[in-house]
Amino acid sequence: MRLLEEKIRSDGIALDESILKVDSFINHQIDPELMQLLGEELGRHFADRGITKVATIESSGIAPALLCAMELHVPMIILKKQPSKALNSDLYQTIVTSYTKGTSYELTLSSKYINEHDHVLIVDDFLANGEAATGAIRLIRKAHATIAGVGILIEKTFQPGRKKLEEQGIEVYALARIAGMQKDSITFVSEA
Amino acid sequence: MRLLEEKIRSDGIALDESILKVDSFINHQIDPELMQLLGEELGRHFADRGITKVATIESSGIAPALLCAMELHVPMIILKKQPSKALNSDLYQTIVTSYTKGTSYELTLSSKYINEHDHVLIVDDFLANGEAATGAIRLIRKAHATIAGVGILIEKTFQPGRKKLEEQGIEVYALARIAGMQKDSITFVSEA
Repeated sequence: MRLLEEKIRSDGIALDESILKVDSFINHQIDPELMQLLGEELGRHFADRGITKVATIESSGIAPALLCAMELHVPMIILKKQPSKALNSDLYQTIVTSYTKGTSYELTLSSKYINEHDHVLIVDDFLANGEAATGAIRLIRKAHATIAGVGILIEKTFQPGRKKLEEQGIEVYALARIAGMQKDSITFVSEA
Repeated sequence: MRLLEEKIRSDGIALDESILKVDSFINHQIDPELMQLLGEELGRHFADRGITKVATIESSGIAPALLCAMELHVPMIILKKQPSKALNSDLYQTIVTSYTKGTSYELTLSSKYINEHDHVLIVDDFLANGEAATGAIRLIRKAHATIAGVGILIEKTFQPGRKKLEEQGIEVYALARIAGMQKDSITFVSEA
């Protein structure tokens, strides 16, 4: 999606070969009009898949997932990063480990909100190693729901996330696909 | 706002005198169409205040804050609950302690996204003891910005959050104001 590529080129900051900061329009400050266009485009791409729910992992995926769910006229589910007091019964849980960050967290889903009849689109801001997305898939499969696809704002194609998902037969659609980065330089797949 | 009161009455669950679960439409599963109406109403209420940014605390406030920011055509800022690797320079930070939950977390804001010229509307899902909101206010004041108001989906009027904010001269607007709760029974201020 040219609009997002141009925004990344103008406002994103490549710190090195693997870290891209998009704090000014996606992660910390959000440009609502841009985010609406991105959410709508994800929704349009998956419009004919019979999707019944859009799910995301808190918290950077909430904005695009919400606007995608609005486009598809379906509920949006936030997969929680830790069990809270008010969410302690009938939970599905899985551990997600980020090897790059050296951290682990527990991802949780109430059994009330996704069931075996659901076709779930997973939306997130980044796809890199695919740890969060594969954790979300494990969790949603515990509810015996169908994974309808994974919609991503920014994919780092030089990391193995897409491969892991496609090997499970899951369609991945990313709005901006980064082929490679160096300090202050970003190349997209369409140009690579 | 009658629409939200009715939704809380039909789908909210009062566990006891202080805990209200709204997981099915606000916290865990989100109804996008309802959330859009709520965000728009918050935006309309504060439309003439010269607001330049909408800020929220991750993560339950992100959805209403995003839709409120969209209504006001201004950027939305997510105050982060912990410093992340990619956000480690030029940060404002404050500790927020939840006495009810017995937990503390560090709230952070990059100095790039809010400055002394900003008029900031804080949006969150709940107002109870006001710990999160007063933390957000401390943080935004470190950036020398003006607090334009606090917009809330659900206020527990029997807890002191509003009082703490109004004592600082801050306007609070809540879409649903709960006067009291008992197991399976919720009373709103308009009826109290």
